[in-house]
Formats: sequence, C-alpha cells, structure tokens
Amino acid sequence: MANYTKRVKYKKHKRHINVGARPGSIIIPDDALPPQITIFSFNQDDLQTSKGKDMKTITQQIAKCTDHTHWIKINGLGDAQLIEDIGIFLGINQLVLEDVVNTHQRPKFDEYDGYVFGTSRIIYFNSENELVNCQFSGIVKDNIIISFEESHRDYFEVVTTRLKAGKGTIRTGGPGYIFYALTDTILDNYFVLLSQLGDMIDQTEDKLYQSPDKTIMFDAQQLKRTLITIRRACWPERDKINDMIRSESPEITKDIKLFLRDAYDHCIQAMDMVESYKEVTSSIIDLYLSMVSNRMNEIMKVLTIISVIFIPLTFIAGIYGMNFSRQDDHGHVIKDNMPELYVQHGYVYALIGMFLIGLFQLFIFWKKGWFNKL
Amino acid sequence: MANYTKRVKYKKHKRHINVGARPGSIIIPDDALPPQITIFSFNQDDLQTSKGKDMKTITQQIAKCTDHTHWIKINGLGDAQLIEDIGIFLGINQLVLEDVVNTHQRPKFDEYDGYVFGTSRIIYFNSENELVNCQFSGIVKDNIIISFEESHRDYFEVVTTRLKAGKGTIRTGGPGYIFYALTDTILDNYFVLLSQLGDMIDQTEDKLYQSPDKTIMFDAQQLKRTLITIRRACWPERDKINDMIRSESPEITKDIKLFLRDAYDHCIQAMDMVESYKEVTSSIIDLYLSMVSNRMNEIMKVLTIISVIFIPLTFIAGIYGMNFSRQDDHGHVIKDNMPELYVQHGYVYALIGMFLIGLFQLFIFWKKGWFNKL
Amino acid sequence: MANYTKRVKYKKHKRHINVGARPGSIIIPDDALPPQITIFSFNQDDLQTSKGKDMKTITQQIAKCTDHTHWIKINGLGDAQLIEDIGIFLGINQLVLEDVVNTHQRPKFDEYDGYVFGTSRIIYFNSENELVNCQFSGIVKDNIIISFEESHRDYFEVVTTRLKAGKGTIRTGGPGYIFYALTDTILDNYFVLLSQLGDMIDQTEDKLYQSPDKTIMFDAQQLKRTLITIRRACWPERDKINDMIRSESPEITKDIKLFLRDAYDHCIQAMDMVESYKEVTSSIIDLYLSMVSNRMNEIMKVLTIISVIFIPLTFIAGIYGMNFSRQDDHGHVIKDNMPELYVQHGYVYALIGMFLIGLFQLFIFWKKGWFNKL
Amino acid sequence: MANYTKRVKYKKHKRHINVGARPGSIIIPDDALPPQITIFSFNQDDLQTSKGKDMKTITQQIAKCTDHTHWIKINGLGDAQLIEDIGIFLGINQLVLEDVVNTHQRPKFDEYDGYVFGTSRIIYFNSENELVNCQFSGIVKDNIIISFEESHRDYFEVVTTRLKAGKGTIRTGGPGYIFYALTDTILDNYFVLLSQLGDMIDQTEDKLYQSPDKTIMFDAQQLKRTLITIRRACWPERDKINDMIRSESPEITKDIKLFLRDAYDHCIQAMDMVESYKEVTSSIIDLYLSMVSNRMNEIMKVLTIISVIFIPLTFIAGIYGMNFSRQDDHGHVIKDNMPELYVQHGYVYALIGMFLIGLFQLFIFWKKGWFNKL
Amino acid sequence: MANYTKRVKYKKHKRHINVGARPGSIIIPDDALPPQITIFSFNQDDLQTSKGKDMKTITQQIAKCTDHTHWIKINGLGDAQLIEDIGIFLGINQLVLEDVVNTHQRPKFDEYDGYVFGTSRIIYFNSENELVNCQFSGIVKDNIIISFEESHRDYFEVVTTRLKAGKGTIRTGGPGYIFYALTDTILDNYFVLLSQLGDMIDQTEDKLYQSPDKTIMFDAQQLKRTLITIRRACWPERDKINDMIRSESPEITKDIKLFLRDAYDHCIQAMDMVESYKEVTSSIIDLYLSMVSNRMNEIMKVLTIISVIFIPLTFIAGIYGMNFSRQDDHGHVIKDNMPELYVQHGYVYALIGMFLIGLFQLFIFWKKGWFNKL
Repeated sequence: MANYTKRVKYKKHKRHINVGARPGSIIIPDDALPPQITIFSFNQDDLQTSKGKDMKTITQQIAKCTDHTHWIKINGLGDAQLIEDIGIFLGINQLVLEDVVNTHQRPKFDEYDGYVFGTSRIIYFNSENELVNCQFSGIVKDNIIISFEESHRDYFEVVTTRLKAGKGTIRTGGPGYIFYALTDTILDNYFVLLSQLGDMIDQTEDKLYQSPDKTIMFDAQQLKRTLITIRRACWPERDKINDMIRSESPEITKDIKLFLRDAYDHCIQAMDMVESYKEVTSSIIDLYLSMVSNRMNEIMKVLTIISVIFIPLTFIAGIYGMNFSRQDDHGHVIKDNMPELYVQHGYVYALIGMFLIGLFQLFIFWKKGWFNKL
Repeated sequence: MANYTKRVKYKKHKRHINVGARPGSIIIPDDALPPQITIFSFNQDDLQTSKGKDMKTITQQIAKCTDHTHWIKINGLGDAQLIEDIGIFLGINQLVLEDVVNTHQRPKFDEYDGYVFGTSRIIYFNSENELVNCQFSGIVKDNIIISFEESHRDYFEVVTTRLKAGKGTIRTGGPGYIFYALTDTILDNYFVLLSQLGDMIDQTEDKLYQSPDKTIMFDAQQLKRTLITIRRACWPERDKINDMIRSESPEITKDIKLFLRDAYDHCIQAMDMVESYKEVTSSIIDLYLSMVSNRMNEIMKVLTIISVIFIPLTFIAGIYGMNFSRQDDHGHVIKDNMPELYVQHGYVYALIGMFLIGLFQLFIFWKKGWFNKL
Repeated sequence: MANYTKRVKYKKHKRHINVGARPGSIIIPDDALPPQITIFSFNQDDLQTSKGKDMKTITQQIAKCTDHTHWIKINGLGDAQLIEDIGIFLGINQLVLEDVVNTHQRPKFDEYDGYVFGTSRIIYFNSENELVNCQFSGIVKDNIIISFEESHRDYFEVVTTRLKAGKGTIRTGGPGYIFYALTDTILDNYFVLLSQLGDMIDQTEDKLYQSPDKTIMFDAQQLKRTLITIRRACWPERDKINDMIRSESPEITKDIKLFLRDAYDHCIQAMDMVESYKEVTSSIIDLYLSMVSNRMNEIMKVLTIISVIFIPLTFIAGIYGMNFSRQDDHGHVIKDNMPELYVQHGYVYALIGMFLIGLFQLFIFWKKGWFNKL
Repeated sequence: MANYTKRVKYKKHKRHINVGARPGSIIIPDDALPPQITIFSFNQDDLQTSKGKDMKTITQQIAKCTDHTHWIKINGLGDAQLIEDIGIFLGINQLVLEDVVNTHQRPKFDEYDGYVFGTSRIIYFNSENELVNCQFSGIVKDNIIISFEESHRDYFEVVTTRLKAGKGTIRTGGPGYIFYALTDTILDNYFVLLSQLGDMIDQTEDKLYQSPDKTIMFDAQQLKRTLITIRRACWPERDKINDMIRSESPEITKDIKLFLRDAYDHCIQAMDMVESYKEVTSSIIDLYLSMVSNRMNEIMKVLTIISVIFIPLTFIAGIYGMNFSRQDDHGHVIKDNMPELYVQHGYVYALIGMFLIGLFQLFIFWKKGWFNKL
Repeated sequence: MANYTKRVKYKKHKRHINVGARPGSIIIPDDALPPQITIFSFNQDDLQTSKGKDMKTITQQIAKCTDHTHWIKINGLGDAQLIEDIGIFLGINQLVLEDVVNTHQRPKFDEYDGYVFGTSRIIYFNSENELVNCQFSGIVKDNIIISFEESHRDYFEVVTTRLKAGKGTIRTGGPGYIFYALTDTILDNYFVLLSQLGDMIDQTEDKLYQSPDKTIMFDAQQLKRTLITIRRACWPERDKINDMIRSESPEITKDIKLFLRDAYDHCIQAMDMVESYKEVTSSIIDLYLSMVSNRMNEIMKVLTIISVIFIPLTFIAGIYGMNFSRQDDHGHVIKDNMPELYVQHGYVYALIGMFLIGLFQLFIFWKKGWFNKL
C-alpha cells in the first residue's frame, strides 16, 4: 500500500443494451465466465457437497438429499441454458432471470409467489488493486437457496467455513439464514473497504501536512470515486434490508429479522462513514488548494521584492552606463553631459545612493507587512 | 466519436406562447412536419398494415378490422385538422390534444373517462450529432393506441419488428402493452445515451491524465448540459411510471404492471447513473482546475527562480558598466571612481563573486523547497 | 435586445413596515397610483362595460345588471377609502384588505365564509427594460370577481378581448373561471419571461464561445437575480393552485378544477425551466472563470518564456559591457581583465553562444510541454 | 448608515453550562439585569398600571383587580428568587422556569396543564450598531400573561401604546391576544431588520458596480452572519406559530388563530426574504471575486505586454553596449568584433530594427486578442 | 488555549472487522482497558458503594441490597468473560453484548423483552488536547442499570456527586432516571465542546481581521472535522431520544419522558449550533481566500507598476549605452551614429525625457484606477 496513487482502477465491462428487446430476454455478455456449480446440502447433522457444471448436478443432489437445506452456489454466469433450466426447474419468472444475468442491478429485494429474490453489489480491491464492482443475486424457495456470483473467486469462504464447522444457527436457520449470512458478509466487506479508504485518507492527510505535492488531487479524486461507488451500493442496500425486514415471506423468519435489524444498523453506519469520508476528502482538497494558492503568493512575493528592489538600481546603473560624450566632435568639453561621472567620489556617492534606495524599499515592504506570513 | 468536443448541439425550436389563449387551443408550430400515418391492426394470428396521410385511412382500417388491436402511429404533428378529427373521432378532451401538439410537456400520465394519456421525452444524438429532445405522446382507448411523434424518424423500429415477428406478449397484450413497449424502448435508449456519455467521460478523463488542455472544460460543460437534459426527462418519467402502476384503468392490466415495475427499476437506475456521472464530471472539472493552478504555479516558479538569480547579477554587471571616469576634466586620476576596474584579476574576482551569489540563491531556493513538487 | 447587459433593473418601492400596528390596518404607500375602476357585467348574450373612480360606479352597475356576472377590475391601489368601502359592501375581512394593499404578499389562496381570496405576482420587463414585480389579488364572491392590480397597465388585455369576443367558456364559466383565466395569463407571461431569459442565456453562451469579456459575469448575475425572482413567485404559485384544486368552495367548480390541473402542470414546467436555467447559468459562470484562468495561464507562459530566454542573454551582454580596464593606472596591460574582448572572432563566438543558450532553453520548455495547450 | 462595514458586531454573553446539573435548576448569569416589573390590568373600560421590583407588586395588583386581564411585564432576569416565586405563585414547572432564565432557547411553544409557554428571539441593531439577539418568553395562564425580556429596553412600546389607546381587540382579546400581539411585534421587527439588510445589500451592490474594494468581502460576511442569525430565529418561529395554531389550549382562541395564520404567512415571507438575500449576497461575492480575478488578469496583461516588448529590445541595446574591442592588445583592428558599430548609418538601422521588432510583437498580441477585454 | 492550531488530534483505534463472523460474537480489541466495576446501590435513604473487577462483586452486591436500585458502572471493556457473564446473569441478547464491545455504534435506543439498551457518543478534548470520541452504552432492566464506558476516566463524576448528595429525583427516579441523567450529562458536554469551538472560531476570526496567516486554513480544517464529529453524534442522538420518548417500556416512566423532551430540545439546539458554526467556518474560509487573492493582486500591482515604469526607461538608458562608434576604422566621423550623445545638454534632455515618460505612465495607471483599492 506504499503508493496507492496509481492504484484505484475500475474494471469495466461494457453494459449490454438491447433496445426494445422483449422483457425477460436472457442475453449473456461475451466476457461472462463459464459457471461452476457447488451444492451444499445440509441439516443439523449432515453436510454433503457436490460440484459440477450443469443442471444434472443440481437435480441429482436435490433428489438424493430430501430432508436437507440446499445451497446451490453458482460462480460464473456464462451459460444461458443453465440459467433457463434453473428457471424452469424452480418456476422462476423470466424477468428475475434477466436481472440475474444483467449484472448492473441496484440492490433490491422482490417477493414473488413462493420465492424471494435479492441482489447486492460485491465491491473489493482485487489482487491487481483494481476496484471490482460485481453483482450477487440470490433466490430463496422452499428449502433451496441459489446464489449467483459473476466471478470464480471464493468470496464467501468464511460462510462455507462456518457451514462446515456447523456451529451456530447456520445449519438450522434454513435458506433464509444463508441468504442473510451472505448479505452480512458483503456488508462486512464494505467496512473492510472503508477501513482501507480510511487508511488512504490518513496517508493523504499526512502527505498534505508533510510533503504536499500534486498527487494529492489525484488521490482525492480516486477516493471520491470509490466513495461514490460504495454509496451507490449502500443506499439501495439499506432499502433492500428494510424491505426484507418488512417482508412477510415465510423464508424470512422472525429470527432472521432480528439479525437483519443488526445488518440494517451496519448499513446506516457504513453510509454514515461514507458521508464523513466524503466531507473529509473535500476539506483535504480545499486545504490543498489553499496551500497551492499560498505557495503562489509566496513565490510572487519573492519575485516582486527582488525585482522591485533591483529594477530602479539597475536603471541608475544604466543611466551612468550611457555614453553621453564629455567632448563634442570638435573636442570641446560639454559640461552638462554627465558631470557626475567626473566628480571626486562620484562612484562612492552613487553606490551609497543605490544602497539607500534599496533600504528604503525594504522599509516600505516591511511596513506593508510583506514579510509577515499571510 | 474521435472528437466530440464540437459535438453536442441542441436542436432548438421556439416555444410558442399564446398568452391568455383559450385553454385547449390547438396551435401548430411553423416548423412542424406533415403527418405520416401508419396503422398496425393485429391479433394473435393476423397483422395488417396501412399507411396514409388523413383521417380516412384511420376510419377505414378500424372499420375493416373489428376484432383487432389497432396501433395508429403518427409521425409529424403539422396538421391541426387531423389532430382535431382524431379528437372528435375518439372523444378526446381538447386539453389533451393541446398537450399533444405543445411539445414541451414533462413526462406525465393522466387518466380520463374511458382513456388514458401519457407523454415521454425521446432523446438521442441525430446523425449530425445534435442532441434531439422531442416529445412522444400516446392515447390508449379500448382496443386502440395512438402514438404521436414529432419526427419522421423510425424510432420505434424495434417494436414494429417484434410486432411483425409476432413473438411474445406483444400481439396479445393489448394496446396497453404496446404503450408499455414504447415507453420501455424510450427508457432503453436513455441507457444507450448514458453509455455514450460514459464513453465521453472516460475519454475526457483519459485526456485529463494524458494531455490536458482547455477543451476539457468545454467537454465537461457539454456533458453537464446533456446530463441535465436526461435528468429533466427521467425524474418525471419515474413519477409517470409510478402513476401507471397505481392506475386502475382497465387499459393497464396486472400483467403490464409487472413489466412496469421492471421499467420503474430501470428508470431509477438511469437516474442513479445520471447522478454519478454528474459527480464524476464535477470532480473532473475540479481536478482540471487544480492542474491549471499547479501549472501556473510551476510557470511562476521557473520565472521567479531565473529572474531572481539573474537580476542581482545583471545589476552588478550594470554597476561595472557605468562610465565613472578615472580622470577628471583636467586629466587627474580620480582614485575613488571604480577602482575595482583597474585592479589585477578584478574581472575574475567579479565573475567568481557573481557565481557565488547565484549559487547562494539556488541554495536558498532549495532550502525553501522550491525544487520539490508542490 | 442588442445589449441587455445594462438592462435588468429592479423597480423598487419601499416596503412599509408598521411595527406593532393593529392587524388589518389599511395603510396606502405614498407612491400608490389612484384607482381606475372598470366593470364588465356579462352573461352569455350581453356584455356591459362601465368605468369610474369611486364606489358609486360599482354599486350602480351591480344594481343595474342583476342576472350578470360582474368583473370589477381595479388598477391602482391609492385610495384607502375605496378599498374599505368595497370591504364593507361585500363583507370582506380586514386582514384580506390589508393583504390587498400590502403588495408584498407571496402567492396564496385563502377561503373565507362565502368568498375566496387569492394573490399572484405579475412579473414583466417594462418598456424601460426594468423588471417589474407587482401584485395581483382577486376576490371571488357569489357572481362577483374583484381584481386588484398595482399599475394602470392593461396587462389583462387578452382576457378582456376574449370576453368581448364572447367565445368559449369565458362568458358562462362564472367569476371563478375569470379568476382562473387571469391566473393562467400570469402564468403564460412567466413563459414569455423565461423565453426572453432563454434568449439571453443563448446570447451569453454565444458571447462566451465567440468573444468572452467581463460583461459575462454581469449578465450571469442579472440572469440569476431574475431567475430567483421568478422562482420566488412560482413556488408558492404552485401551492396556491394546488390549494384551489383541493378547495371545496362553490366558486371553484369541477370544470375549473380541470383547467387548474392544466395550470398546475404549467407551473411545474416553469419551475423546471427555472431550475435548468439556473444550472446552465452556473455552468456558464464556471466555464467563464476557467477561461479567465486559462487566459492568465497563457499570459504567464508568454511572459515567462520571453523573460527566461532573454534574462540570461542580457546578463551575458551586461558582462561584456563591463568596463574592466585593460590597462591599470600606469598603462600596463592587465591580462586577466576581460581577455575575451580582445580575442579574434570574440564577438562572433559570444553571439553564437547566446544563440545556443536561447535554443537550449526553448528545447527545455518544449520538453516541459509549455508549447502544448493546457 | 454611511459606512456600515465596521458596523455589525455581536453582543456576546457567555453561555452558562452546568454539566450534569439537576434539570430545572434556575441559575442566573452574572451579567443579567435586575428585574423591572410593570403590570397592566385592563378590561374593556379600565386600565390600571403599576410598577415595582418584587413579588409583592404582582400579588397586590392581582388581588386588587379581580375582573381584569393582567399583563405582567418583566424586564431583566437577574433575580432568581423572583422567578421562583412567580413559578410557585402560578404553579409553573421548574423546567419552564429554567428555559426562561437560560436565554439561548430556540423559539418554541409548549402546552402544560392549565398554561402555555412560548419563547421567541428579539433581534435588533442597538444604538451602538451591535446586533443584539436576546430572548422573549411568555407564560399565559387563565387571565394572566407574564412576559420576560432580557433587557430594560422598551421594545414593546407600540403594544403598550395600543393598550392605552384601548382600540381594537387588544383590550378584549384576553391574555392570548396579548401574547399574539407581542409575537407579531417581534415578527414585524424582523422585517425592519430585513429592510435594513436590503439597504445594505443595495449599498454593497452599488459599491461593487461603482468603486469595488476589498471591504465588499467584509460587508458580505457581515450580511451573511446577520442573515444566519435571523434564519435561526425564523425557522423555529414558524414551527412555533404552527404549534400555536394547532394548539387546543383555551388560551389560544379561534379568533387569535385567525391572526396567527396571518403571522404564519409573515414568518414564511421573512424566511423567503432571508433565502433570497442569501442568494443575492452569494452572487455579489461571486461577482466580486470574478472582478478581482479580471483585475489580476488585466494587470498581468499590461505587465506582460510591456515586458515582452522591451526585453528583446533591451537585449539588443545590451549587445551593442558590449565592449568587444576593435583593436587587440597590439593595436591591430579585429574586423570581426562588432563591425556594425563602425558602419555608416549603423545606429539608425539598429533603431529601425528595434522599432520593427516592437511593432511585430504588438501585431502578435493583437492577433492573440490581448487587446480585447476578456 | 494559546495556540490551538496544532491541537485537535484524533485518538484512533483500529476498527476490528471480522468478516462473516457469527453475529453476536464478542471480540475484544487489543487496546481495550481492563474493566473497573463500581456498584451504587441506593434507595431514598441509603447509598452503598462497592468496587471490584469481576462478576462476583456484582452478584454479591445485588444479593445484599434487595430493595435498592443498582447502578453497575463498568469502566473498561477488556474482559470478554465479564461481558458474557453479565449477559447470562441478566439474560441479555448476544447482539446487544456485541454492540457494547464493538465501540463504533451510532447512538441508538432498542427495546427488548424486559430490558432496554441505548448507546451514545462521549466526545471531549483530553488533557493532551486530543479529541476523544468513545462509546457509552447502558442497559436498564428491572431495578438495575449497567453503564459501560471505554475509558477509566471519571466522566460521570457530577452524577455520582448528585447521587451521593441525594438531592432531587436522582435517588427515587429509578434506573431509567439514572440512564436519563447520564445521557443528559453527555449532551451537556456537547455544549461545553461547542463553547470551546465557539471560542476557537472567535479566535480564528480575530486572527483573520488582525494578522491573517496561513494557519487559518488549518484551524478551519480542524474546526470542520470536530464539527463533523459532533454532528455525527448529535443527529442519531436526537433520534434516539425521540425513540425513548415514544417508548412504552416501563423503565421509561412518564416523568422521565418530561425530562427527555427537555433533552430533545437541547439536542436540537446543539445541532443548530453545529450548523451555524459550520456556516461561519465556511465564511471564514471564503473571507481568508479572498484576502489571499487580494494580497496577490496587490503584490502584482506593485510589481507591475514598478516594472512597467522602469522597463522603458532602462531601455532608453540601454540605447544610449550602446557603443556605436563616432568614428569609422579610418578615423572619419560617422555623423549618423548616436548624434544625441554629442549634443550640448543631450544628457539633461535625456533625463527630462525619461522623467516625463515615467510621469505619463503614472498618469495612465492613475486613470485606470490602479491606485484605488480593488
């Protein structure tokens, strides 16, 4: 984290706009990754895991474990057929499936007959220090939760670890609890991100106080853009959690709502931090700009003092450097021409005069307060 | 899109203000285009199309196809008589017809006895790269939808294509679904526009980082104005869609409302992008201004360092360029006048002195940190 | 409209504050004009007009035309006695009469027992191009509407013309419709004003792109003040119209409410334009300021390049202009003193040296990108 | 009002913070004035006045006039015992009494069992032109109103005059009407203040257009602070009046509520003026800053044009001022050394050359538009 | 408080983020202090105090004093076991305990079955003049209130003093009253802080008027950050108090709600002061920046006037310093070469000419108003 100035980049993928397309069309972006399916089937005592790449993996596992809760974890959305098969298998609306693959959704929570659907934004710095902003979606129906992630990264490792350990409500809370746990992990990662940004702000402020240079504006710009990204994810996330708390779906039990209220508080806290960080970033910029302005002022003062002192002196030297002739073409002395040059001690008097003029000017500047620090 | 600096222009047409005119007056602007009427009459199995320029085309087609849904598509609003005839034919309020021809309406949705009326803003870059902001209005009554567009451009080609293909709900959803499909197409085009703006912002930002020049301010200005235009269309569009969702007109069926909820989400997403783009544009401006300020600072520093170093040296040279005479008019040596000039090695001492003064000044500047990058 | 820079002035009249005065006091400002009364008595078939200056005119006309609607149009509020007589004649609350003469009311609509009262702001550029902001108030009771205007200007000419022509609902809509028509005329005039401002903004923007000078800031300032004035009138006007729509007074019939809804839309549209114009004005200012900043930058660059190139060269010329003597007082050659001056080709070498130094500096500036356009 | 730059000062009194003190503690600030009690006991026909400094004055007067309304006017809060005695006499809650003496309350209106309590901010310029911001509080119970003011100033003179004159509802409206009348007087004085500020703004704007100097920023700063002060008083005042209107206390009769609605309108009008004045002040600052910026620009242009024209010319003069010798030490002519100096008409050619160079530079500047007014 | 520029520092402790951790985990930060337990058991007549470090202290004291109200005051949160034991002893939800140890909560008030939980932010300048922002939490259940503070500082000394004195409701108001008293003390300290900030603002403003220097920007930056911190605590505190007022818990009695309404007013007053202080700080910054800008202007004017006057004069001196020879190599007089130098009174004429040029320039500057103060 030595030099984060060059650090924050944005992984862009083109948005696919199919103007006037039939609503509910499932159109896969070209750069989508092939899906990896992991299924966790668990109850209080048992946990079975299977991996695969197609629909068969899912149907077999669900057929095998009848009294289990199933978490179908799909990493990569590159297979339109799979998404549609899942839609048919569970009876999911086409519009929902479109939202799963069109990965620019704002966080939201929708209730449908027999199932609920939610999305969130996963935001993190990847190993190349690019800011990744991708989509998580989840469908909860009966004893099944399907989670969709864009990348193959094992983002939810902490949740699978807790699941394997089997501690706490995670095995018994049902698919709704898993959905909460995933959302909560995403929120926790916002705090990780905000803590990194907090460090960046501190570094930038230290730089400002110790050795300000023009990278500060770039740093501040990066910070601002990252904060805008987090805020854009956080605001609708709060509304989403609120919708979940007020939801009457059987999937969101009263116990889960208690946890959700906690998540809601975290969300507000994150937004609160974003706003504070934005204000601090703004005041860093203001302070920096005022330092630039002051610096300019100081430079101008040095230039002006030196110039203004020497310009008249140089002029006087120029005067006595003129070649007005003491003699006309006929060799007669022209008495009026620069008599000072021919006077005893003339040179000394000239130097003293210059010195006094310089001194007088310094005195004027001192009176005007130019030697104070404005 | 190589150089979009000169690109965004606004196609202006004068607003016609008829102060104190009777409400409901249909006054056609001078530059309105002559109407082109296209009628699509369709049911699940059949699609008939006819084109024309007057009321007769409409009445004949409607008489002919009795169990069809009719989409009367009117491009060009230059015929007051036609508008009034349609009004009489369908029993439309004069105030509604006035809103159709007075093409500066904000998006809105109004319900009347037996029919509904809605307007939207169509915004796009035309082939001369001018930003066009014109009006779409639609009236839905029974099995008829009439759509009014200002231009002859085939803006809704994608919808007519889907209609001809006959896939999806488009043939069976009734005139309300057509109205939704047109609105949705307009919204999709906002995303096309926003994606173009996103590219412009990226280009401007790249320019800022690579070769900043003063066109950046003009680009930013253009971006801002375009964003203001989209926002002015998007905010009331959201309210309009919301009004449609809460409407109890039989024309807006429950199925359509499901799609409208999707369109509502898109609308919020568009507004969200507009806000983010505005913030990013602002921070580009801030960064650019700080670069200008820094550049000025740098220029001033160079000027000051060079000036301040040479001004005293030039003064010294000036001193020794003075013509104080070594001899008075009588040929006697004046010992006091510039004895330095007659000293062995005087010139070398003078050069060394100047060199040391210059060095001392550089040292002072170095101490003051002027060689650092503020 | 060639030069509107000097154009926007504000006609000020002192506000009269009678601290602690009894509420309902009718205190006439010194500069109020004497009243001119015009009465239009009309029904579907008949229109009678009479003019006068006192109460008698009113009572006679009303006594004469019993089955007519009366519009008592009063221009000029300079006669306290008349106002009080009208109040007694129609049984109007003292607080209402106070609001009529205290012409700094925000637009509002109040319902009283048996009558309604409303005010609006009339805003226009008068023939001396001053921005006039004066008050319109109207009282509607039974079959009578009394309108009060501050000036003698025939502002509502369009309405009286329509009344004389006898077309539309204007003769049959009752006093409430006249009240609506007057309000609507005021609103229409906001659009005239906004259209003038739109032209000014376009002119200012053209000036900015073609020949920016410092009048732009003054223009922008004028635009802003005018926009603030319109906004101050428009916001409460919207609330007023809304109050009228929700009013249950018999004077505001259901038909009038339909028209009022249209006026409400216009009002929002006007506010929308004001906000857009304010944003555009702000961005014009920003652009102008950045141009000033850039201009300064450019000037500094020219100064710096020329200064920095010539300062060292002039110094060198100064060196060789020094008068270090080749001979001491005894006529011996001092070999060390400026031997360059006595060398074959010395002058040519010096010129070449200066030329190379200048070239080197230009190269440095070119490397630093000073010849690019920041 | 010739020079109000030095005018706006803030009379500060230290806020007394008694951390963790028992709520309801009556702690008198050190600089509080001793109380002056004036009692007006009146009914329609009679008005009796008595003055005093202690509780006895109050009890005697109330005992004496049984069928009167009593207005107990207390100027100066320096006697904790008196405040407590009044509290006990009328059965007032300790928290209310604390609010009376802790004179930093925001305007508010609270209802208690059997009495109501309200505070407002009295704001005015005193005779030393300091902005005074002190507290008015009033308690209305049965037929008694007690008003508390911080200063001995006869701020409510207009109300006592009306009371003595006995005109209007003031004698018969009960203590609630007196409370309204006092509040209304305070509001009227906001308009006096705003009118003074309006004059100041006009003066500042005139100064800006005629002879701008740096006092403008100080003036604007003063205006802003004063506007902030008024706004801080006005916003909660509006809520307070609204609370009074919706109050169901018998002290606030229906008639009074009619007047309060008028006061409410005044309050909104005052806030509206404050907001406009703030915007105008801001745009004065913007305009001034842009003038400073333009002035700098102009100065830089003059400096640059003069410098850039003369620097090369001076360099050329410097060249021909060099002392390259025409003869070497041995008296041989060195042909190469400055042959220009020995040429017929050399001097004239040099002068012409300099003149042409200067002209050429002027032409370049003219081409660059430096002689236009940016 | 002589120099508070270097004063405001922020005591930072790292936030501990346990991504995906089981909700309700009690994880103690490394820098948490060991707990000090003080128990006050009191009724109207009796007050018993005991101190300790573990659970036993608590259970013994509670067992001993059965008809007392217990205030368990815990300073330092470094013992996870203790927190958990207290949780088990009183039956407190794990999520609540997590909020107690995770000391970055926003102020909030939550009701649970049988107990209530609230947090506030304690903000003060410690003896090293660092701004400390730490957490207070309180749990009220039956006759017990447990308060948790992060530091060992005796922040609530005033409350314990009042408790020992036994005056007022503090002994009889129950644990809810103690909770109110602690919250109120925290609020009172906000006013202490705001009063310190008010002094700082006054000092900064004085500095601005008397001897402005660049520390002003740093001071303003510090003020702003401190104000942001207070506002972040104050806004949710207001909501919290409001929640308490609307709470139906038996712990918050009707009497306490009366006091809470008072605290609510204080909270709004504090927020109001924060907003005013922010505006004043902003306008100080604006004024300072304008002073910097004016100062620059003044410096530039001096530089320009002196430079522009002397540059042409020095050029003329340079001209007459040129060495154009009066004789060609053959000794012939070259009449054209600088004849001015050989003219009678030439030198005097030259000096007079220079003087007139300088005078003319001064006249031009005076005409341009450069000697006015812009």
